[in-house]
Amino acid sequence: MRKEHDLIGELEIEDTAYYGIHTLRALQNFHITAVAIHKELVDALVTIKKAAAITNRNIGVLDEQTAEAIIIACDEILAGALRDHFVVDCLQGGAGTSANMNANEVIANRAIEHLGGKKGDYDLVHPLDHVNMHQSTNDVFPTAVRIAAIRLLKPVTESFADLQSALQEKEEEFSRIIKVGRTQLQDAVPVTLGQEFGAWAQAISRDRWRLYKAEERLRQVNIGGTAVGTGLNAPRAYIFNMIERLRDLTGISLARTDYMMDPTQNCDVFVEVSGLLKTAAVNLSKIANDLRLLASGPYAGIGEITLPPVQAGSSIMPGKVNPVIPEAVNQVAFQIMANDTAITLAAMSGQLELNAFLPVIAKNLFEALDILRNILPIFIKRCIEGIAANERACRQNLDNSTVMLTALTTTIGYDNATVAALVFNETGKSIKEIIIENNWMDKDTLDEVLKPERLTSPSSNKKGQYKS
Amino acid sequence: MRKEHDLIGELEIEDTAYYGIHTLRALQNFHITAVAIHKELVDALVTIKKAAAITNRNIGVLDEQTAEAIIIACDEILAGALRDHFVVDCLQGGAGTSANMNANEVIANRAIEHLGGKKGDYDLVHPLDHVNMHQSTNDVFPTAVRIAAIRLLKPVTESFADLQSALQEKEEEFSRIIKVGRTQLQDAVPVTLGQEFGAWAQAISRDRWRLYKAEERLRQVNIGGTAVGTGLNAPRAYIFNMIERLRDLTGISLARTDYMMDPTQNCDVFVEVSGLLKTAAVNLSKIANDLRLLASGPYAGIGEITLPPVQAGSSIMPGKVNPVIPEAVNQVAFQIMANDTAITLAAMSGQLELNAFLPVIAKNLFEALDILRNILPIFIKRCIEGIAANERACRQNLDNSTVMLTALTTTIGYDNATVAALVFNETGKSIKEIIIENNWMDKDTLDEVLKPERLTSPSSNKKGQYKS
Amino acid sequence: MRKEHDLIGELEIEDTAYYGIHTLRALQNFHITAVAIHKELVDALVTIKKAAAITNRNIGVLDEQTAEAIIIACDEILAGALRDHFVVDCLQGGAGTSANMNANEVIANRAIEHLGGKKGDYDLVHPLDHVNMHQSTNDVFPTAVRIAAIRLLKPVTESFADLQSALQEKEEEFSRIIKVGRTQLQDAVPVTLGQEFGAWAQAISRDRWRLYKAEERLRQVNIGGTAVGTGLNAPRAYIFNMIERLRDLTGISLARTDYMMDPTQNCDVFVEVSGLLKTAAVNLSKIANDLRLLASGPYAGIGEITLPPVQAGSSIMPGKVNPVIPEAVNQVAFQIMANDTAITLAAMSGQLELNAFLPVIAKNLFEALDILRNILPIFIKRCIEGIAANERACRQNLDNSTVMLTALTTTIGYDNATVAALVFNETGKSIKEIIIENNWMDKDTLDEVLKPERLTSPSSNKKGQYKS
Amino acid sequence: MRKEHDLIGELEIEDTAYYGIHTLRALQNFHITAVAIHKELVDALVTIKKAAAITNRNIGVLDEQTAEAIIIACDEILAGALRDHFVVDCLQGGAGTSANMNANEVIANRAIEHLGGKKGDYDLVHPLDHVNMHQSTNDVFPTAVRIAAIRLLKPVTESFADLQSALQEKEEEFSRIIKVGRTQLQDAVPVTLGQEFGAWAQAISRDRWRLYKAEERLRQVNIGGTAVGTGLNAPRAYIFNMIERLRDLTGISLARTDYMMDPTQNCDVFVEVSGLLKTAAVNLSKIANDLRLLASGPYAGIGEITLPPVQAGSSIMPGKVNPVIPEAVNQVAFQIMANDTAITLAAMSGQLELNAFLPVIAKNLFEALDILRNILPIFIKRCIEGIAANERACRQNLDNSTVMLTALTTTIGYDNATVAALVFNETGKSIKEIIIENNWMDKDTLDEVLKPERLTSPSSNKKGQYKS
Repeated sequence: MRKEHDLIGELEIEDTAYYGIHTLRALQNFHITAVAIHKELVDALVTIKKAAAITNRNIGVLDEQTAEAIIIACDEILAGALRDHFVVDCLQGGAGTSANMNANEVIANRAIEHLGGKKGDYDLVHPLDHVNMHQSTNDVFPTAVRIAAIRLLKPVTESFADLQSALQEKEEEFSRIIKVGRTQLQDAVPVTLGQEFGAWAQAISRDRWRLYKAEERLRQVNIGGTAVGTGLNAPRAYIFNMIERLRDLTGISLARTDYMMDPTQNCDVFVEVSGLLKTAAVNLSKIANDLRLLASGPYAGIGEITLPPVQAGSSIMPGKVNPVIPEAVNQVAFQIMANDTAITLAAMSGQLELNAFLPVIAKNLFEALDILRNILPIFIKRCIEGIAANERACRQNLDNSTVMLTALTTTIGYDNATVAALVFNETGKSIKEIIIENNWMDKDTLDEVLKPERLTSPSSNKKGQYKS
Repeated sequence: MRKEHDLIGELEIEDTAYYGIHTLRALQNFHITAVAIHKELVDALVTIKKAAAITNRNIGVLDEQTAEAIIIACDEILAGALRDHFVVDCLQGGAGTSANMNANEVIANRAIEHLGGKKGDYDLVHPLDHVNMHQSTNDVFPTAVRIAAIRLLKPVTESFADLQSALQEKEEEFSRIIKVGRTQLQDAVPVTLGQEFGAWAQAISRDRWRLYKAEERLRQVNIGGTAVGTGLNAPRAYIFNMIERLRDLTGISLARTDYMMDPTQNCDVFVEVSGLLKTAAVNLSKIANDLRLLASGPYAGIGEITLPPVQAGSSIMPGKVNPVIPEAVNQVAFQIMANDTAITLAAMSGQLELNAFLPVIAKNLFEALDILRNILPIFIKRCIEGIAANERACRQNLDNSTVMLTALTTTIGYDNATVAALVFNETGKSIKEIIIENNWMDKDTLDEVLKPERLTSPSSNKKGQYKS
Repeated sequence: MRKEHDLIGELEIEDTAYYGIHTLRALQNFHITAVAIHKELVDALVTIKKAAAITNRNIGVLDEQTAEAIIIACDEILAGALRDHFVVDCLQGGAGTSANMNANEVIANRAIEHLGGKKGDYDLVHPLDHVNMHQSTNDVFPTAVRIAAIRLLKPVTESFADLQSALQEKEEEFSRIIKVGRTQLQDAVPVTLGQEFGAWAQAISRDRWRLYKAEERLRQVNIGGTAVGTGLNAPRAYIFNMIERLRDLTGISLARTDYMMDPTQNCDVFVEVSGLLKTAAVNLSKIANDLRLLASGPYAGIGEITLPPVQAGSSIMPGKVNPVIPEAVNQVAFQIMANDTAITLAAMSGQLELNAFLPVIAKNLFEALDILRNILPIFIKRCIEGIAANERACRQNLDNSTVMLTALTTTIGYDNATVAALVFNETGKSIKEIIIENNWMDKDTLDEVLKPERLTSPSSNKKGQYKS
Repeated sequence: MRKEHDLIGELEIEDTAYYGIHTLRALQNFHITAVAIHKELVDALVTIKKAAAITNRNIGVLDEQTAEAIIIACDEILAGALRDHFVVDCLQGGAGTSANMNANEVIANRAIEHLGGKKGDYDLVHPLDHVNMHQSTNDVFPTAVRIAAIRLLKPVTESFADLQSALQEKEEEFSRIIKVGRTQLQDAVPVTLGQEFGAWAQAISRDRWRLYKAEERLRQVNIGGTAVGTGLNAPRAYIFNMIERLRDLTGISLARTDYMMDPTQNCDVFVEVSGLLKTAAVNLSKIANDLRLLASGPYAGIGEITLPPVQAGSSIMPGKVNPVIPEAVNQVAFQIMANDTAITLAAMSGQLELNAFLPVIAKNLFEALDILRNILPIFIKRCIEGIAANERACRQNLDNSTVMLTALTTTIGYDNATVAALVFNETGKSIKEIIIENNWMDKDTLDEVLKPERLTSPSSNKKGQYKS
């Protein structure tokens, strides 16, 4: 055990621990979720520390040897080392101070070892004076959260592109399968099954674009702003160099905001991005609901499509297979909408020069991105791509309904159509049969009018199109 | 009383009523909020009806005389007539059918009068066959909601621009007033009062931009798609002409979507726009909170600013004036966030070819836009523009705290700074006094270092900036 | 025009206006929703004013004549007079001060007239000194909101009882109609249609009980607490008498809280009640969804029930009838959930001795109660009571599926059941046919086993019930 | 590796894995949060399995030896063994089937070992036929979630009792410290610091009571209802015995619901309980906000209390200590409110005989309970108990304001009070001084009137209390 001090007093720390007293205090204060800060957030924090060490060395305020030790320590962590020393709870008071200090301490203690010292020899490398040089939690943490969010967002955006493609392949595949369209869950007019997938693909294409643009929102960072965004105690040379280093190290087109007090205190950007994730969740939820509806049955439901079976559905009902993947998608959507609530509440509760509640924003944003990133490939591979059309059911539902009558009102008239509906209801005869029996149309004309492409698109001729 | 029929039966209608049986059914079915559909929605519906009459006449399927009667009736309503005949509840089942029929019936009955008939003589002008020709609720209503939303959004966007300007004027006005910056509500480092207004202005400038872009999202309409977006029974000529007419009549760059089934069933665009309104609400709420905090007191609070008094605050406490305008802003923000919940729930609950819950989306979106449109000019005129700085309080709070010590750590060292803080706490002497007494700095240097512009911006020289 | 003064200055007021300068300021400051405070809130405020006048007269601090004039004015308003002089926006800053002052002013000016004066002669009856005597907005408004909420809640609770009864009548009516039960929208095991209504009734019975209990939560009031709940400047005699008067006048078992500072600042009770309304909304939404699902079709859906037609569904599709009442119920549910968001946000944002955001709480709570009060009788009368079972569809769906197999696994074995499912799928023969053909059971035993009451309840004998 | 089969096919499973193919499918299908089901849920599931084995043995349908092996396996797991074999993602499709199967498989494989077999020898003990005998996911999972929720709720309720006590101790401790009361953040009338803690304690006492009652809501379980709540295939003897066993094993007064279809499909109970947690979160948030406000400063804020320092606050600002515990409380509150959104969405989305989204309800309910259970003791021990009053600041704020004037209006008159306020504002003289100088009161009377107990409670005499 070694002893460390802070302004409150002294604590004993395990010799093996790379973190120090500030982290230990945080462990005592914030045993809340028992989940540590996100791996991508650790990466982002350590990348910032590395960039700062390089910058401070370059502008001549951090000696070569110390800088080098810090940089090597950062590289080790970025390569995967010492991850179990990043222990502070993701839900923490203090605007991220504990996360920042956890990074500062682990890096310092590892750097100390590289310089031949023992953990805790902060004269060699100091968590604050050296690792945190020219930084404040209040510029480091908001910057790190943005970098991590961008990294988590990228695969999500790509998955939305994949989902759009998967839906569009089905749109193509099912483009000739005509079926009942339903409005308000009531039989309406014909559509193709392909068109249904196409309409979903349209919504997803918007999500893809939105999330692509969302990344831009996150690129404005306040690194260099220090405590409140005025940049107090940070040299201009540091500020200008730092953002360049960070761009290099992250490969992200980060931009230093013109007004660093702004991102230090305002979290509206996270609300905007979360709002877009929620919008995507709305679309995913709608698609999942529709899939479950169209696949309902298999016998006593709509049953127009079959989802690929991915697990047995019931211990008690032989052969039951459930739409578990769409159900998971629905739940992911609910979760994302819930997380949006937390992000909104936290963002609106910032006060004056800082939003102290950024940790809960980060927790909820990262979870939303994680579960989206995870579910989308599953949704595509284990559900969408394997969907089969039940053509027979599509056809039966269509023939066994009156939805084609709407297409015929312009030809046989609204009154005859109404009569046909009544006869259909009473006798169960097919609509076609009724029309031919009544000599309202001959079979050939009827077949022409009821061709799928006519039934599912606007009229090409305007004359006769409307009884007037 | 006159009698009208529908497929359910017959009802008696007041002779004075321009609406007909479908509207009357809706009144019986949907006595829910007792608030009729929004005025802008009426405008949009009637504009669509007018555009359809022109289009149908132009493509030769609606006779000149009938078209003319419809167009004149529409123009009268658009000019303000017959508004009290638009009576259906804004919260209605049926995906907007009742709103659409209310418009069809009022227009038809008025047009009938122009043709010399009496209300109810639907042989002359029929609500469905003529006024609703080539339309369906399912393309008319979503299109109308978008047009109304765009019109309500415009003044809101302009008001955000005005709010940004008002804040920036204060940024300029207060640019030399130095004061305590606060993070986590604890004294932090100095800022200028102007900078605080500037940080708010930054957030509002983003809102302005977001809402400006939000309008674009709403411009894609599905008019011509009829029941499910396939355009069934609508001639191509109608579809292509209709969007042109609508653009002319509204003056909005509306675009016919490539995939009309999409906006018929997907409401994600409203969720996106509502999410942006919610983001703006977060910023407004944060600003209102900060204003109330900075104006707290007047004696036993922070009291660094004074809000213009706009009404007496208390019947029991003499002279009390409360921050009622920011309090109203807070409540508007809460309401907008709440409305976003309704919009999200309704949008995710659409099924298959239609979202039947668009009426509740419209209600909540329009309310959000209305209250924003109303509160923003009040916020600007009756609060922001009249804010006065309490320079003395700003100065006293600064002098009576240790926040300048952070600026001095680089000069007098962290240890002396800590000693100074202790002496300050025990004796109440000013920080300046303590430093000069201890000969850590001479008065001139101290004054130089503590200049407002130095205290609230990054360091220009890198050397000596950091003790190393 | 008459002139009135307040601490800000002077304004001209229409001679006909019973309200005064404080109300006029509020009109200028809070043109937000353009909807005035709720009628029930006006009632509650005026009732409090009347109770205070009686109390102050009784304890000897308000002279008989003034008291009488105030009481008469209150009675007139309670009887319906002067309602259009209660004009302040329901969404107002100032914790309800404007609503309180609106009441004080209208009552004072009317009382003045009774004493022979002219509006504005506040020497005769003063809005503050007389009408508001021993009161503060901060005890009047929270008390009034609770009284109004209780009054709005009562019919809602009664309607939930009615809804429960209506569902239970259908439970009884449909108790012999056996049908497919569905889990995860997949065919599961048999249930009766009656059982489905019964399960809904159970949920509604809980709502009824919850809302009944919710009323109790609202009965604790802080009248007498004045500005912050300490009761400063209110005589004990007034406090003790006031609550008695208020109980008498309202007929509600109101209780003076032991700790008047508590309801002055804490709004958790409204969050609790709103949470219960939201819980009821969840149940209503689930029932409405299920009804729409079971009524889907009429041909190409589940179609096991028919909802009573209440209006024509489509202008374009002949004979289409939509489930517009359940759709309205869904939207009411969404709205209630949204309003819960506003109430939660406002309640959590109270600060120190007062929650300044009670107006937005009241607005949202009252709207939630109003729309529930309105929709429930419609839902009962125009939907639930008229629901018809489609016995044929129920039977066909059952026979045309494999759901009875689960009931047979204990008799014919899981393996034979699986074979039967396969044969069913390939040949379309009925399950019964397959079993008899294979001699797994004889017809009589089979009929016995497949009796509705056996299929939809636990087994009476334990032996042979499980193959082991 | 061993091989297992299900209706989809065959998979290889690690020999060391106690779970089987159904669990493995779930791992492939639901890699979503990467967090397994909650420990308490595992406990509850295994307890149900144990109760079922005992019951089935007792009613004579499960042989002694198999039952014994299952019971021993359950006991081992309940004692902490094999926990890392409960691996399915907490967020899973399928209404909990995967969680149920995970339990069935681990128990079966462990029981098999006890009977001398090898994992996978399901002839010895079968996950479905034996472990899951007479059960369905649809009765097991909802029952298990309720049991787990009750167990998580108990310590939370106790912590609310502790919090109430802690606040009341401070109420007592600070009962003589008089200070400025604030409404709308503006100086209002005097209160004691003790009264402020008392008002918070009142709100918390309601939460305590609510959560105590909430437990009752959760006690109604549907075990025995099997797939849809009809109890199909479950013998009555099993059903009646099972609930008894479960009561014994859990020590919770569980009750079998009269209508088992109800809890199988309705999740309103979880919405109700979550709504109560949200209500508690509102109170916690309000208290945390107030604490941060009263502790603001330490110099340039209100500074009337000091929170115990629990960690250093800033790397850049010497000696800064932040209110990190209340900040964590705020964030916990935001999270609970967010989780309520997820629970509401999932509960309203149940369809017909089952709510397939119970897993996301469980996830969010358990997280809410966990973080409350964790934060409350920290809030009590590391914040509330250590709060110190800054009597000097309380006194100064009081003397340096006009709030005592309200108490004097009844003695010196409203007009003199207004004059005194003006003089105070211009000269900075104390209110007392001004009153004595003007001979409005003598010093002794003034001291009497301004006694803390008089200033913070109603008036004892009614005469002279009001100028009339």
